[in-house]
Amino acid sequence: MGTRYNVIAGQSVERLAALSDGLFAVAMTLLVLDLKVPVAQGIKTDQALLSALGGLAPRLVVYLMSFLTLGIFWVGQQTQLSHFARADRHLTWIHLAFLFVVSLMPFSTSLMAEFITLRTALLLYWLNIVALGAVLLVSWRYAMGARLVEPDISAVIDRSVLRRIYVAQGLYAFGAALCLFSTYWSIGFIMTVQMIYVAGPRTGILSRI
Amino acid sequence: MGTRYNVIAGQSVERLAALSDGLFAVAMTLLVLDLKVPVAQGIKTDQALLSALGGLAPRLVVYLMSFLTLGIFWVGQQTQLSHFARADRHLTWIHLAFLFVVSLMPFSTSLMAEFITLRTALLLYWLNIVALGAVLLVSWRYAMGARLVEPDISAVIDRSVLRRIYVAQGLYAFGAALCLFSTYWSIGFIMTVQMIYVAGPRTGILSRI
Amino acid sequence: MGTRYNVIAGQSVERLAALSDGLFAVAMTLLVLDLKVPVAQGIKTDQALLSALGGLAPRLVVYLMSFLTLGIFWVGQQTQLSHFARADRHLTWIHLAFLFVVSLMPFSTSLMAEFITLRTALLLYWLNIVALGAVLLVSWRYAMGARLVEPDISAVIDRSVLRRIYVAQGLYAFGAALCLFSTYWSIGFIMTVQMIYVAGPRTGILSRI
Amino acid sequence: MGTRYNVIAGQSVERLAALSDGLFAVAMTLLVLDLKVPVAQGIKTDQALLSALGGLAPRLVVYLMSFLTLGIFWVGQQTQLSHFARADRHLTWIHLAFLFVVSLMPFSTSLMAEFITLRTALLLYWLNIVALGAVLLVSWRYAMGARLVEPDISAVIDRSVLRRIYVAQGLYAFGAALCLFSTYWSIGFIMTVQMIYVAGPRTGILSRI
Repeated sequence: MGTRYNVIAGQSVERLAALSDGLFAVAMTLLVLDLKVPVAQGIKTDQALLSALGGLAPRLVVYLMSFLTLGIFWVGQQTQLSHFARADRHLTWIHLAFLFVVSLMPFSTSLMAEFITLRTALLLYWLNIVALGAVLLVSWRYAMGARLVEPDISAVIDRSVLRRIYVAQGLYAFGAALCLFSTYWSIGFIMTVQMIYVAGPRTGILSRI
Repeated sequence: MGTRYNVIAGQSVERLAALSDGLFAVAMTLLVLDLKVPVAQGIKTDQALLSALGGLAPRLVVYLMSFLTLGIFWVGQQTQLSHFARADRHLTWIHLAFLFVVSLMPFSTSLMAEFITLRTALLLYWLNIVALGAVLLVSWRYAMGARLVEPDISAVIDRSVLRRIYVAQGLYAFGAALCLFSTYWSIGFIMTVQMIYVAGPRTGILSRI
Repeated sequence: MGTRYNVIAGQSVERLAALSDGLFAVAMTLLVLDLKVPVAQGIKTDQALLSALGGLAPRLVVYLMSFLTLGIFWVGQQTQLSHFARADRHLTWIHLAFLFVVSLMPFSTSLMAEFITLRTALLLYWLNIVALGAVLLVSWRYAMGARLVEPDISAVIDRSVLRRIYVAQGLYAFGAALCLFSTYWSIGFIMTVQMIYVAGPRTGILSRI
Repeated sequence: MGTRYNVIAGQSVERLAALSDGLFAVAMTLLVLDLKVPVAQGIKTDQALLSALGGLAPRLVVYLMSFLTLGIFWVGQQTQLSHFARADRHLTWIHLAFLFVVSLMPFSTSLMAEFITLRTALLLYWLNIVALGAVLLVSWRYAMGARLVEPDISAVIDRSVLRRIYVAQGLYAFGAALCLFSTYWSIGFIMTVQMIYVAGPRTGILSRI
């Protein structure tokens, strides 16, 4: 018996939070690189520029949606980390997997902006969201099982974390299924769900999702 | 009654500060990617290089102005965060909205550098500044109303935060209006205002704005 | 006698950790820029998009491998830093050298993705991994010698840190040597080793590597 | 009389350090984007790849030099910040000016890599280094004058900080002047000086610079 490397590795929740903040910050700003400024030649008047910018509108919508997605999952991860008393190497790797999926988001976003009418692009984007939710679910379950969360976590908090993931993923899946009709319906529905999560209403039926 | 997810989410001012620092750092350095190094072919002498670099001067001015803008709003956000005793999910989302607007700044900057004589580009840049100020205003008012600020915040501090936002936005609006004459007048006026804010004179009439 | 600059410089383990987290975060997200979204013209159907994405599969594998590499060495560095009671300027520069090698990883990755069948690309990638391990080895030995580690570090921890570096580098070297047969064998072997490190099995023969 | 905004703004040394770490991390990794992977077509053998990579060697040297420059000034800023008991808005803006100059470094580096034989490129690079040193000098003098440094800073520390800046800038200026003969002499001399600073010898004549 002896102290193996795995026992002493990856114990810092603070370093995990710092790496995550950095990676989310880069991913959020990389998204905007997709908003390419129109080329100057050929655009000489305000009217010409306005119409060129109008062509960017779909990309801006997709960019906003991805920013919301990243924001929602950043809050989700932060909420979990704030309840972890400590980490171990397994939890650290679960969150590195989470960050890997986060780092794919600029690619999925770019893909959907470029092929906004194709279901393949929309479904890959949705798979990216599913992966984000799945890893957060694994993270919470593992941390509860390995007793890495603060000891005073009540069953109520446990349930509310799990419930949020299940309900949100259910809604995202329904939204993705709407691409049977049109990818625009999917995007519209998913953004509506996200806006509700952002607004976070305190009363009424929407406060229950 | 039960602990809903929204009650436990987004409570960390520290994580908010860390994400903000990361995002500002990326946005500030992305600006410089607009300064494109001249292509080597065709430039064989120091004179040729100097004149090629001279052509970059307007971009450098625009870049400096955007760095000042980001610096001013980074200080503004930091000043607010340093007075927050804690956050809640609404305040977190207000600041994620703030970061979204920050992440648009490299795009607005690029647009203005490319179309420096067109009012559309200047007004969009100004709208970006207006949005930054508006979100910070909402942040402060919400935090005061929800009692998230430290309890010993005096009415004097409250007034000075609000006054700064109103006065600065008034000056930026006046600067933007100068584009009726020329976009260069607007840029010159806005940069002058920014320089005064950077210098932060302690006495004289300029110390009152 | 006098306080020389070198005595007061570079003493903060926290700043070192923060710079490292930022640099790893940027390097991890820069990797994904290699995943270029297919160009829209010519792709009009889901089938066409799927087959275009299929062509990206090798790049995605290389990207995943590099993310694993960076993750493994981020955990490795974190484990060391968490045992340092303080830093001095030499230790700071050893870790700046480490970060330099980290910053080369997106380049090595890109090179290997572009020339996946050429041994030169694979061996340069491997040299990048060797350099990461070598600098971490120097870091640990220096910190032990200069008594910068926490005083209660046992010989067992010391041995387990060193053993991990030697065993891992031995396995990576064996994997690199497999390129005598095929670069794909090398990539397959190295990724298998990495997956074992990520999984971190607690029992069985794999728990001893 | 009343609490003006400027009195409460920009007081956090921690936020300044976090923004700086983020910006240095991005600048350090942006440098490597200059190392462009050779294009795959036309390169079919290991020999062809090796010779294509050989052509990147000058860029790698310039990149290493810039990484050293950023590392040296990161340590220099960290050393100052670690002695500051608190900040005020003026000190914050001095360091934002420092970060602006840091963010120009990838551009200067790119310029020198592209025009390595032209004095203009070398002198602009040198001016970037001069600006870094000048702002750090202003920072230290201001912090000492405004009593923002920790009270127990001895005259010895004060002198050693100032002396380091003067001596280093003198050496860099001498190196830049060598471009009268050849820009390669300048680069060689400056890198030698940097390597000595990195090594930080404890005895002998080199320990006095």
